[in-house]
Amino acid sequence: MKALRFHAAKDLRVENIEEIAKPGPGQVAVKNRFAGICGTDLHEYVAGPIFVPSEPHPFTKAVLPQVLGHEFGGTVTAVGEGVTHVKVGDRISCQPLVMPRSGDYFSDRGLFHLSEDLALVGLSWNGGGFAEGCVINDYNAVKIPDSMSDEEAALVEPTAVAVYAAERGEITAGDSVLITGAGPIGMLALLAAKAYGATKVFLSDVNETRLKMARDILPEVITLNPMKDDVVARIREATEGGVGCDKVIEASGNEAALNTGLQAVRKQGTIVQVGLHTKDSKLHWHDVTFKDVDVRGAWAYPTYYWPKVIDLIATGAVPAAKIVTKKIKLDDAVKEGFDALLDPAGNHLKILIDLEA
Amino acid sequence: MKALRFHAAKDLRVENIEEIAKPGPGQVAVKNRFAGICGTDLHEYVAGPIFVPSEPHPFTKAVLPQVLGHEFGGTVTAVGEGVTHVKVGDRISCQPLVMPRSGDYFSDRGLFHLSEDLALVGLSWNGGGFAEGCVINDYNAVKIPDSMSDEEAALVEPTAVAVYAAERGEITAGDSVLITGAGPIGMLALLAAKAYGATKVFLSDVNETRLKMARDILPEVITLNPMKDDVVARIREATEGGVGCDKVIEASGNEAALNTGLQAVRKQGTIVQVGLHTKDSKLHWHDVTFKDVDVRGAWAYPTYYWPKVIDLIATGAVPAAKIVTKKIKLDDAVKEGFDALLDPAGNHLKILIDLEA
Repeated sequence: MKALRFHAAKDLRVENIEEIAKPGPGQVAVKNRFAGICGTDLHEYVAGPIFVPSEPHPFTKAVLPQVLGHEFGGTVTAVGEGVTHVKVGDRISCQPLVMPRSGDYFSDRGLFHLSEDLALVGLSWNGGGFAEGCVINDYNAVKIPDSMSDEEAALVEPTAVAVYAAERGEITAGDSVLITGAGPIGMLALLAAKAYGATKVFLSDVNETRLKMARDILPEVITLNPMKDDVVARIREATEGGVGCDKVIEASGNEAALNTGLQAVRKQGTIVQVGLHTKDSKLHWHDVTFKDVDVRGAWAYPTYYWPKVIDLIATGAVPAAKIVTKKIKLDDAVKEGFDALLDPAGNHLKILIDLEA
Repeated sequence: MKALRFHAAKDLRVENIEEIAKPGPGQVAVKNRFAGICGTDLHEYVAGPIFVPSEPHPFTKAVLPQVLGHEFGGTVTAVGEGVTHVKVGDRISCQPLVMPRSGDYFSDRGLFHLSEDLALVGLSWNGGGFAEGCVINDYNAVKIPDSMSDEEAALVEPTAVAVYAAERGEITAGDSVLITGAGPIGMLALLAAKAYGATKVFLSDVNETRLKMARDILPEVITLNPMKDDVVARIREATEGGVGCDKVIEASGNEAALNTGLQAVRKQGTIVQVGLHTKDSKLHWHDVTFKDVDVRGAWAYPTYYWPKVIDLIATGAVPAAKIVTKKIKLDDAVKEGFDALLDPAGNHLKILIDLEA
């Protein structure tokens, strides 16, 4: 079958690989439908291998070359022995985290996403979303309702990241929230913040195209460009008592954005760090103590989030499909997908690969 | 009366100032007994004015020269109109925070310690602990029981800082806790962590004298010197599953200590930042997201903590008096107090000024 595989930095190849294997016990075979390109995929493309294992992964044994794609959905085509919760023909969204289910400090506490042996379908598993199909574990295949579109099935994963960020921030009704970074996760965090009840939402980014997209997606958002606006002053003016916003979700991975967030948040507010800072960040750390704030990392998502996030999307509470800017063929994935997303113009948010096109 | 006043950096003077005023409505006059020298006092001495106002404080109107001393106790000698909860002759510990009691975003929520107009007795109030007496607001004077010593009355304030840090870290029975920084707050945080139930406590500092003091104060503490020990490896070895410690209290204000804490804490652990970082810190921030941790600032303490902290000390749950290394006369405060504490040898932790000596 056809698949896009990562061989090395800047070396992605659409090639023919072996057909989908017969699912083993506790596994299911999936015919993939749509798969989204994620920032993590872009990092691998530009500077990998990072999450992709150069040596066989200690748990999954996956190794280069690696089929990418961990945001996807499809239809179950075969089930292995002992699989009872999905059946052939079910439409599913893939929850891509794979790990030992016991005998691991974190898995034994239900914190599967923190396992030291964590792997991901499409990064460190033999198979992924950027292929005509794949074999995954039964717990990776989560049935979706008829009310969810095929495109939306591919958006559950990034939405789960944003929903977890909102939950780590304990965002609730009446909150004022600043999102820093108008990429796909920032946009989904904006929608998630609304779903959790935020009544005043700010979004900062240096890219005007992205800020305009955000206003199209959510007209009430107050967009701020730190190259032109005094972000902290604007937020203080707009919040009760001039104290700053209740919560910040830092979705850019940028040092300056985090320092702005530390200034913009009110005392005893909360900052959620969901964007990965790939190098050390120099921070005005005095504020953390002086302002008595909470800073909380948000890594991936608890694996049990899938049904909830599916519900949030399918009911329209988090209209994730609004961030899709293009659908492309697998053959065009590098040029029309990866390269388009890396273009500094920032004209694209989420690009989906249509595996049936 | 005699008082130690801050005039400028490196200019502290023991001098005669006007006698204690008659307390106004809602105020009490106090004859001071013991007063501790705090790291904040040292910062003022070395690099002030920082908290000491050069222009009249917007709320208290206090201004240079400033009587220092915000960790102290004494005996009520007079009460103003409307004061009902203390009476002449009561022994008190001073809760030094002063702020508008209403009409302020944070005060209106009971978060008095976060008021934008916050002042402190002994830093930004007309009077302080390093004097024979002072006049304070009724809410600053908290009666102590007979079971609390005069020395302990002066230790309630730094203990409140440490107790708040332990509470921000939600330290509870069975926790493994690393304290970074073996100064007075670090030592009190160690004792507070024990009081909240920590069963495995680590303390890191580069000063061997301080580490020895810590072992004298709490023999079970595992002391680690980052100049000699691999702190992270030692903590991982000593914790279940090798995952790292549950909590960290960063009490040094040091960048390297915080980065060590970020490495030593387990995933979904909590780091409390109580030591003030006076310059920007370069942090391995990736860990915050990847490890899904909480980092929480701990600024001062809620003002309502005084009775609880008095109880923790008076019952022996937090044996704060163990950190006192010397008692000196007011006349000797600069040489025997401030300069002794600034000596890099680190032979002293908490020095109390005896106002009756």
